[in-house]
Amino acid sequence: MRPVRIGLLGCGVVGQGFVRLLAEERFRHVRIERVLVRDRAKTRPGVDPALLTTDAIEVIDDCDVVVELIGGIHSAGAYVRRALRSGHDVVTANKALLAGSGRELFALARDNGARIGFEASVCGGIPLIRAIERGLAGDSIESIIGIVNGTCNYILTRMEENGLDFASALRLAQQNGFAEADATLDVSGADALQKLQILAELSFGPTTHARIRVHGIDDVDREEIEQARSRRCVIRHVASARRLPGGVELRVERRELPESHPLAAVRDENNAVIIRGRAVGEMFFLGKGAGSLPTAAAVLSDVLEIAGQPKPVALHANLT
Amino acid sequence: MRPVRIGLLGCGVVGQGFVRLLAEERFRHVRIERVLVRDRAKTRPGVDPALLTTDAIEVIDDCDVVVELIGGIHSAGAYVRRALRSGHDVVTANKALLAGSGRELFALARDNGARIGFEASVCGGIPLIRAIERGLAGDSIESIIGIVNGTCNYILTRMEENGLDFASALRLAQQNGFAEADATLDVSGADALQKLQILAELSFGPTTHARIRVHGIDDVDREEIEQARSRRCVIRHVASARRLPGGVELRVERRELPESHPLAAVRDENNAVIIRGRAVGEMFFLGKGAGSLPTAAAVLSDVLEIAGQPKPVALHANLT
Repeated sequence: MRPVRIGLLGCGVVGQGFVRLLAEERFRHVRIERVLVRDRAKTRPGVDPALLTTDAIEVIDDCDVVVELIGGIHSAGAYVRRALRSGHDVVTANKALLAGSGRELFALARDNGARIGFEASVCGGIPLIRAIERGLAGDSIESIIGIVNGTCNYILTRMEENGLDFASALRLAQQNGFAEADATLDVSGADALQKLQILAELSFGPTTHARIRVHGIDDVDREEIEQARSRRCVIRHVASARRLPGGVELRVERRELPESHPLAAVRDENNAVIIRGRAVGEMFFLGKGAGSLPTAAAVLSDVLEIAGQPKPVALHANLT
Repeated sequence: MRPVRIGLLGCGVVGQGFVRLLAEERFRHVRIERVLVRDRAKTRPGVDPALLTTDAIEVIDDCDVVVELIGGIHSAGAYVRRALRSGHDVVTANKALLAGSGRELFALARDNGARIGFEASVCGGIPLIRAIERGLAGDSIESIIGIVNGTCNYILTRMEENGLDFASALRLAQQNGFAEADATLDVSGADALQKLQILAELSFGPTTHARIRVHGIDDVDREEIEQARSRRCVIRHVASARRLPGGVELRVERRELPESHPLAAVRDENNAVIIRGRAVGEMFFLGKGAGSLPTAAAVLSDVLEIAGQPKPVALHANLT
């Protein structure tokens, strides 16, 4: 059988993790054909320099599955649209792109007999997209509540356990690779809202007219955390979505949770989500929400599933 | 589009839950064609009596997907084999059948272009099979540890919290529908071992030469529980599987866990599983492990996935 040819867009930490995982012998039916980078001279351990190119068109047009790990919405969006229009399957970890243009992209995929895998876009290695979309397909989801941004959770738990103020905890997060140099997207709640929109759209259908409330953690102070502790509670940055009579409500905000609450036990860069289904009751998922290898493993799981299934399959019909 | 016709074998608590969930308007593309029962006169709320029959052959041969909810290995095994041989897809919650004859059945399915869905066979509504088989397909699973028998966990937590002895806690479980009249399969650890075998085979491949150790909870006494509590620990019935140099080790046994252990917080009839993957690290899944609607929702999710995908798809290739 001819191997499935991957066109890899972007080769940063997740991309390099993907290349590393794919090097295993059992994945020999999947081959990286070309890799789009901005700077070919940069060292990327484990990545064959002969695969590198700065020509996106060449990567997209000459492959079976496009793996988009550039991030952002402009170039990434243009590349993903080009891939889908020519019927190439796309696997992406790009939550901003999906939260903003998901419906358009899924329609484009459907019209061109292509598929979009996006397990890696929410909560890294936790297979939450599959759980909601397929594991719970026979159920009706009533609510979703969780911690979906590892940076915020890292900062809050470090403030709580090390007695740091916000600025010091943020610096610690940056030093340890759990926050970008510009952490605005994370600490403002914008990143969590994007993930929540993807989960809510999968669970409840279109959320165009959702009532949205977003509050970040950048104004949290030690006093708030100490006061919570004196009440045997902790502060967590909680994303939640539920169906209301008039539509869907999306909230991202700090909440004071009793120590006995399942989300109170979620520490550092971990993510956790509680899904309530009408038939199955409450389910709790916890795991590493980000990081090179967990995210790369989620990307690879989508690639393997697409590689193993004949087209056309409505992999993600709910979002179309 | 012609609706997908279901041949339902067995209409007990899970079967009736399945019929109830399927009654929703959005599932009108799936239709129950015939229902095999032992006694047509029995009342089954929500089930159209005109569908009932005592003729298994009629149910199996005249449908697209056979849903096997009889349990046990003899008749159920014969029916499932007949269905697969004629190329019908099968969805089953039957862990005993899969643990004993899984490899044979998956080979039979493959040879006849049929699929087997078995999400409901382990941990009821928690979509664990999909998580391992597909969500973690790009990773290497190193170990699985969990509480996979709700009856044992209910008994142990009632002994712990109500100060009951084993016999009284078992009676309470039976009164509340969390244990069968004959609870031997559960309290001996045999049921947990069957589920563990399915999870281990999915995660590690063939476990034929596994080193197996099984210890039930039927000899647990209050003293053991009290002593653990005095050490700020709890007793849980834990199933675990890991890869060893010589093969796979499967263990089902009571363990004393510190109160801070994630499995220590699992109470009553809940199930929880911790999967450790090389790339993703530790993931924790918790939810209702049994019960009519959670199990029925898992069955329905398999039916919907099979109904939505063209044949032949190697849904469960790892097990073949």
